[in-house]
Amino acid sequence: MNFLEARISQDGIVKEGNVLKVDSFLNHQIDISLVREMAYEWQKRFNGKKITKVLTIEASGIGLAAIVASIYNVPLLFAKKSKTLNLDGDLYQASVESFTHKTTSNIVVSKKFLNEDDYVLIIDDFLANGCALQGLISLCDQAKAHVQGIGIAIEKGFQDGGKIIRDLGYQLESLAIIDSMDAKTGTIKFRN
Amino acid sequence: MNFLEARISQDGIVKEGNVLKVDSFLNHQIDISLVREMAYEWQKRFNGKKITKVLTIEASGIGLAAIVASIYNVPLLFAKKSKTLNLDGDLYQASVESFTHKTTSNIVVSKKFLNEDDYVLIIDDFLANGCALQGLISLCDQAKAHVQGIGIAIEKGFQDGGKIIRDLGYQLESLAIIDSMDAKTGTIKFRN
Repeated sequence: MNFLEARISQDGIVKEGNVLKVDSFLNHQIDISLVREMAYEWQKRFNGKKITKVLTIEASGIGLAAIVASIYNVPLLFAKKSKTLNLDGDLYQASVESFTHKTTSNIVVSKKFLNEDDYVLIIDDFLANGCALQGLISLCDQAKAHVQGIGIAIEKGFQDGGKIIRDLGYQLESLAIIDSMDAKTGTIKFRN
Repeated sequence: MNFLEARISQDGIVKEGNVLKVDSFLNHQIDISLVREMAYEWQKRFNGKKITKVLTIEASGIGLAAIVASIYNVPLLFAKKSKTLNLDGDLYQASVESFTHKTTSNIVVSKKFLNEDDYVLIIDDFLANGCALQGLISLCDQAKAHVQGIGIAIEKGFQDGGKIIRDLGYQLESLAIIDSMDAKTGTIKFRN
C-alpha cells in the first residue's frame, strides 16, 4: 500500500453508489504536504519526459495541478466549464459528462494558451468513466499539443475510463486504483 | 509600480464594462513563478501572524491559494459554489453574487474543516464589490474561525469592496489596486 492508498484507507469515506469522499484531504480541504508527495511521485514516474505545461479542469483538480506545476516550474492551464464574459471567442471546446453532478458541460480553453509547442502533463483528482479526461485530451488534439502523460490521484478501476485511456496509448499514472468499494463495511480494495 | 502591476500593465487587457482580462497569467493560464512571488509578498505583509489554514473560493482562486498554502505549509480549504452529491449536509453557507457571471450562488464549506482553532488567511484573485469576500468572512464567522488577513491579487479600487472590508477592521492586502481603467486606450491607473 503506497502513501496515497494508506491515506484513502484512513480518511476516505465510502458512500452508496460507488462514491468515495476524500473531502478531508483532496478535494475540499487539500493536504498540501500530501499533494506535494504526489507531485514528486508523478515526476518520478514521468521521469525524462519534456513537460512545458500542466493542464487540468476546474474546479477540484486545480489545487493538485498547481502544486505539480510549481514542482515542474511550468505554467498551469485549467479548462473552464463554461464560456464566461472574461473569455474571448477563440476557444477550443469539448463536451464532458460529470458523474458527480449528473450534468453535461462544455469545457473550453483559449486557443492562445495551447498550441503545438506545448508538451502537456494532464492532472486530475479522479478518473471514473474517463469523460473529463477525454475532453482534456480532445482540447490538446485540437491544439496539436503533445500529451506527454496523465497523472490521476484516484482511479475507479471498476469503471472503464482507465482502460479506454491506456488503450489509446497514453501513459496514465494513477496513484491509487480502486478495484472495489463497499459502503456497508467501508472497505476499499486497491489494485496491486 | 510593483511586479504585479508591471505584469498587469504588460499583459492585462481592458475590456468595456470595467472588465480586466488577466487570463494569460492569473485566472485561466497561471504563471506559477509570478504567483510564487505574490505568495512571498503576502507572507512578508502578514509577517508574524499565525496562519493555520488558507481559505479561498472555487474556481479561479484555487491555483493562487494552493501556492500560498504550500509556502505557509498549511492546508488549503476552498468554498464550493453549490451543494454536490459528495458533500455532507453539515455545512456553513453564505450567499454570493458574481460580477462576472451575473449570478447569485450559494457557497459552502463543511463544518468539519473550519472551526475556532483555525487561523485563516483568505486568498482570492479579484476584489470588486466584495460579495465573495464577505461570503468567505461569513463562513469563518459562523465557524468562529479567526480571519488573520485577506490577500487579494487585484482590487478594483473604483468599486467599494475594499473600503467595506477595511472599514470592518480586516488587514486586507491587495497587491494591485486599480483606480481606473480605459478600454479605449487600454490604460490602467494604479493607486500609489
